[in-house]
Amino acid sequence: MRVAALHGAGRVVLEERDAPRPGPGEVLVDVTSVGVCGSDVHYYEHGRIGRFVVDEPLVLGHESAGVIGALGEGVTGLHVGQRVSVEPGVPDRSCPQCLAGRYNLCPDVRFFATPPVDGAFAEQVVVHRAFAHPVPDALSDDAAALLEPLSVGLWACTKGRVGAGSRVLVTGAGPIGLVAVQAALAAGATSVTVSDVNPARLALARSLGATDTVDARSESVLDVPPPEVLLECSGVAPVISEGIRALAPAGRAVLVGMGGDEVPLPLSVVQERELEVTGTFRYANTWPTAIALVAAGRIDLDRLVTGHYPLADAEASLTVGRTDPASVKVMVHPGVS
Amino acid sequence: MRVAALHGAGRVVLEERDAPRPGPGEVLVDVTSVGVCGSDVHYYEHGRIGRFVVDEPLVLGHESAGVIGALGEGVTGLHVGQRVSVEPGVPDRSCPQCLAGRYNLCPDVRFFATPPVDGAFAEQVVVHRAFAHPVPDALSDDAAALLEPLSVGLWACTKGRVGAGSRVLVTGAGPIGLVAVQAALAAGATSVTVSDVNPARLALARSLGATDTVDARSESVLDVPPPEVLLECSGVAPVISEGIRALAPAGRAVLVGMGGDEVPLPLSVVQERELEVTGTFRYANTWPTAIALVAAGRIDLDRLVTGHYPLADAEASLTVGRTDPASVKVMVHPGVS
Amino acid sequence: MRVAALHGAGRVVLEERDAPRPGPGEVLVDVTSVGVCGSDVHYYEHGRIGRFVVDEPLVLGHESAGVIGALGEGVTGLHVGQRVSVEPGVPDRSCPQCLAGRYNLCPDVRFFATPPVDGAFAEQVVVHRAFAHPVPDALSDDAAALLEPLSVGLWACTKGRVGAGSRVLVTGAGPIGLVAVQAALAAGATSVTVSDVNPARLALARSLGATDTVDARSESVLDVPPPEVLLECSGVAPVISEGIRALAPAGRAVLVGMGGDEVPLPLSVVQERELEVTGTFRYANTWPTAIALVAAGRIDLDRLVTGHYPLADAEASLTVGRTDPASVKVMVHPGVS
Amino acid sequence: MRVAALHGAGRVVLEERDAPRPGPGEVLVDVTSVGVCGSDVHYYEHGRIGRFVVDEPLVLGHESAGVIGALGEGVTGLHVGQRVSVEPGVPDRSCPQCLAGRYNLCPDVRFFATPPVDGAFAEQVVVHRAFAHPVPDALSDDAAALLEPLSVGLWACTKGRVGAGSRVLVTGAGPIGLVAVQAALAAGATSVTVSDVNPARLALARSLGATDTVDARSESVLDVPPPEVLLECSGVAPVISEGIRALAPAGRAVLVGMGGDEVPLPLSVVQERELEVTGTFRYANTWPTAIALVAAGRIDLDRLVTGHYPLADAEASLTVGRTDPASVKVMVHPGVS
Repeated sequence: MRVAALHGAGRVVLEERDAPRPGPGEVLVDVTSVGVCGSDVHYYEHGRIGRFVVDEPLVLGHESAGVIGALGEGVTGLHVGQRVSVEPGVPDRSCPQCLAGRYNLCPDVRFFATPPVDGAFAEQVVVHRAFAHPVPDALSDDAAALLEPLSVGLWACTKGRVGAGSRVLVTGAGPIGLVAVQAALAAGATSVTVSDVNPARLALARSLGATDTVDARSESVLDVPPPEVLLECSGVAPVISEGIRALAPAGRAVLVGMGGDEVPLPLSVVQERELEVTGTFRYANTWPTAIALVAAGRIDLDRLVTGHYPLADAEASLTVGRTDPASVKVMVHPGVS
Repeated sequence: MRVAALHGAGRVVLEERDAPRPGPGEVLVDVTSVGVCGSDVHYYEHGRIGRFVVDEPLVLGHESAGVIGALGEGVTGLHVGQRVSVEPGVPDRSCPQCLAGRYNLCPDVRFFATPPVDGAFAEQVVVHRAFAHPVPDALSDDAAALLEPLSVGLWACTKGRVGAGSRVLVTGAGPIGLVAVQAALAAGATSVTVSDVNPARLALARSLGATDTVDARSESVLDVPPPEVLLECSGVAPVISEGIRALAPAGRAVLVGMGGDEVPLPLSVVQERELEVTGTFRYANTWPTAIALVAAGRIDLDRLVTGHYPLADAEASLTVGRTDPASVKVMVHPGVS
Repeated sequence: MRVAALHGAGRVVLEERDAPRPGPGEVLVDVTSVGVCGSDVHYYEHGRIGRFVVDEPLVLGHESAGVIGALGEGVTGLHVGQRVSVEPGVPDRSCPQCLAGRYNLCPDVRFFATPPVDGAFAEQVVVHRAFAHPVPDALSDDAAALLEPLSVGLWACTKGRVGAGSRVLVTGAGPIGLVAVQAALAAGATSVTVSDVNPARLALARSLGATDTVDARSESVLDVPPPEVLLECSGVAPVISEGIRALAPAGRAVLVGMGGDEVPLPLSVVQERELEVTGTFRYANTWPTAIALVAAGRIDLDRLVTGHYPLADAEASLTVGRTDPASVKVMVHPGVS
Repeated sequence: MRVAALHGAGRVVLEERDAPRPGPGEVLVDVTSVGVCGSDVHYYEHGRIGRFVVDEPLVLGHESAGVIGALGEGVTGLHVGQRVSVEPGVPDRSCPQCLAGRYNLCPDVRFFATPPVDGAFAEQVVVHRAFAHPVPDALSDDAAALLEPLSVGLWACTKGRVGAGSRVLVTGAGPIGLVAVQAALAAGATSVTVSDVNPARLALARSLGATDTVDARSESVLDVPPPEVLLECSGVAPVISEGIRALAPAGRAVLVGMGGDEVPLPLSVVQERELEVTGTFRYANTWPTAIALVAAGRIDLDRLVTGHYPLADAEASLTVGRTDPASVKVMVHPGVS
């Protein structure tokens, strides 16, 4: 099969590899669509993310969907030809975190496109059957792939306890911020304010249902009615701090964007208003909800897609964001020649 | 002022009374709209509900809205002329239940239209300022009054932890069942099945967004995919039991309809599936959410209204349900001659 | 190896079997101590429990501890000679319930001594490594085995949200009721009332820390200050109903004892006081807590043990309860000749 | 009556004032015992805490107990001569925070010894009846007064979800840290590690039940097994950061000690381990639990008391901590000449 592999920063090579074979309890998936994530771009540009270094060729891509091509031993309940969305992190399912339902915190998780685990810029991938989620026809291949970033948004809403009538602030209107907006609305939020420095992104947020926007170049989130929940999707230190300051008493700040290590937070505000600040690390048990919401038409993931690339042009999919400010989410299609 | 008072079962008298005066912390409300509830009808027909007996003339009506006519001593933040929805149960705000936020369980609550406390079939009522909730222009007077039954539905969803992607079963499609349907959808439920014996009610449920219906005369809730949450709005013993049997493992059954005392429940199912069965008693802290949802267009209360009566015809509003099977929710308008 | 197998109601046979071999991820345990549970006695007396019928010889016993005798392929973090407590239900770890942390609700769980899965009245058993919990020296073999019933009590406290200062009622002072008392005290309950018809059991409950007792032959739980939590360990219908009636507003009733199918419950009380009634099915993720509490001396399981039997006398361990009213918990020791 | 009033930094004056009179719903309390808190000392030394400035003479003291001396209009359920513990913050009981049970976040709370509200360094105080908590004889006057700091510790445990078997780290072994230790143990924690730079405080912590101590002058909390809960009672920025770094995945950091405004926190750790960082502001609904725990002997508050002062020596009570490193908690007794 063909894969697009990253050979260190700035170098993507299209190469032939042996097709993977599904082990017991696994399935083989013929990949139809893969979303390009900021982390893929970061690996491409820097050859590393923090302690994860691309020492060996690494296949990028962890937002993927496809069609089951083969079943490993003992797999029941799935069939060849079935369309599935691939949940890209397979935990050991035996550690205390897994048994407690927090499999996203499994220390032995194997996560797509994280060295040394290959991702989905490939014609085929294998995954444990429990992480190949069947999707109904109502979902496009792209939407099926984008259940992964949607899961990030849903998980943030769960952590922030967004519910009917919630007032939410989303800081950062990149792809994650935009799915967070949709997730919050789907969870019942009636006020969703979005802040960003990019007017095009803010316009897209509004068209997706955001009830208010803040152009952070000239306006402040401190000037809107205090939200109950902050979904922080920028990862920018002063934005995080100001977002927390904007919260109403008993509010929840959910950190989604990856910030730095020692980041100054307004602790006196956290204490006086009894705020909760919560980290998020990927997601757990989100696919059924994500599928239900998209199938019901509550969330539109196809609206986020701004470009399509065959596998041979995978490198272009990683660089388009540099030059095209209108680019939001681009997709790679390994099955397309 | 004029009121319509119940003088024992089956006898409503239009009479003149002294206008009430707001005490410290209270407001006077000129009532514009009052919904007729099944409990009003029950008092009218039987002269009592359980241990609550109509010994003295009782003004019925607890779903009401109006315009502030006067402010009691020390009231700030509200003004004469302001449109408000009246939350009809005012607790003592000092007992352990109140201080813990469960004011619906306050043993000293004074609740409209519950002997010996008069209700809102009256040109004017007084209520504590914290229970006179300002409503935006987007809400009609009827919708403002019907925030009360909506609160019952929202409270049920809160107790049942209905959220994004939830699968919900609503048994009983009377006014409470119908607001429960809308509340569940607003809270993110993507599957809402409704069961009833009345096809017209089921049709209305579908038009309000229910995704599936069960005609209980010929179909069984045990034949639909197991829901995670049961919102039981019928109060009928075998319906309660069957609804619980329909639940998926780890499901929640929320009892809204008032059933009898000793009701047989399928305890072995409760145990094997580790179900939760929860009672609900009115609601607490629901008005802000209810207002936000209706103002945002997520919930349409006006759709439930099937009739309007001046105060002089209050008795007719209590009997129309006997003869008109299409009647769902009728409103009394004390300010209309 | 030798096992004591049940060949239909009333017939236990000591027989030789091939020693089991640990598969990948499993360990072999040389069993040192096994507690006899009411369910073992029920299988012995009736040859079945509900739909579970003893068609083939069945090895009873699911409360067990031992020493690791061999490691299956790929097992790390454990070693031969290590003392372990055996969690007797191994789920599939792949279904939605397992991934959500509710592995006790796994439809494919394999549970010791439940047809057709053999139990621990055997010199050796195999179990998945994640369900063989190392225990410190502070725990006796018997205590290590009795972490299983303690888990039932801890799970009940979790479901009932027993915490610092809680007021708890335990109905039924059999072994499960007695561990529930200890679990509630360990979780911070300051008032723990126990009801039973057996004065000896009540005396034992008091000696274990219960703050009050109710002799149900002449007294009523309705006469004690209303508890916040009911831990129902009797399974007797009228006791369940009366226990629920005893609860304070916003109270929680946790059903531990197995009652019948359609059991009458006081639904009007459940609704007016907004009670929660919760089923429990075994437990999940309780062993670390159980071990910590016993090791810290907060809970004393050895106090419950009233008899010891070699494997050859396993049948006697199943019948002693009939004749000795002072018998509480008896242990079988397969390693003793 | 006599009071000890702070006339700006460093100046306490014993003066005569008119005795307060209880209004409707209030009681008059003859004060028997008042604990001296770090905030009292801070006002004494600096004449302010943040935005709260001592412009007018201010009576300090907010940890108090006494005997009811008179009942205001409409007070039932209490009687003259009854011993009570005084909860020092009386909210408006009408705002959304109060109605939701979060009365500690009431914007209009009147809190003892916070300008311009006087405290309890006085022979008599008045307080709303719901905040005068009757105490049993088992509690000394000092213990009754110290239910206030205990409430801080209990609230922290509630926020951190400390329960049976929890592993807890308490940073800072001042009076609040020491009650946090006891609160955690009472809530079921089996591992409670305490860090401080004062060996005498650490020894006291051990004698109160702490299972491990860290001398922060030479040891690090990063070297003990990762706790699930951090109860941060130091307010020192690097201690907060290091305490958070010490947490296990899915851990909770509860901020009790007042730190500065912009404090650097290890956000990448918060995210990767999905930690929760929670502020605490006073407490809500803690007195019943606090009373039950002390009455049951689970918590010993008298052990913390290291000195007693008559009202005339109130100033000495505020300065003893400067000179006596063994001083932990000192009490003022207004009723003693």
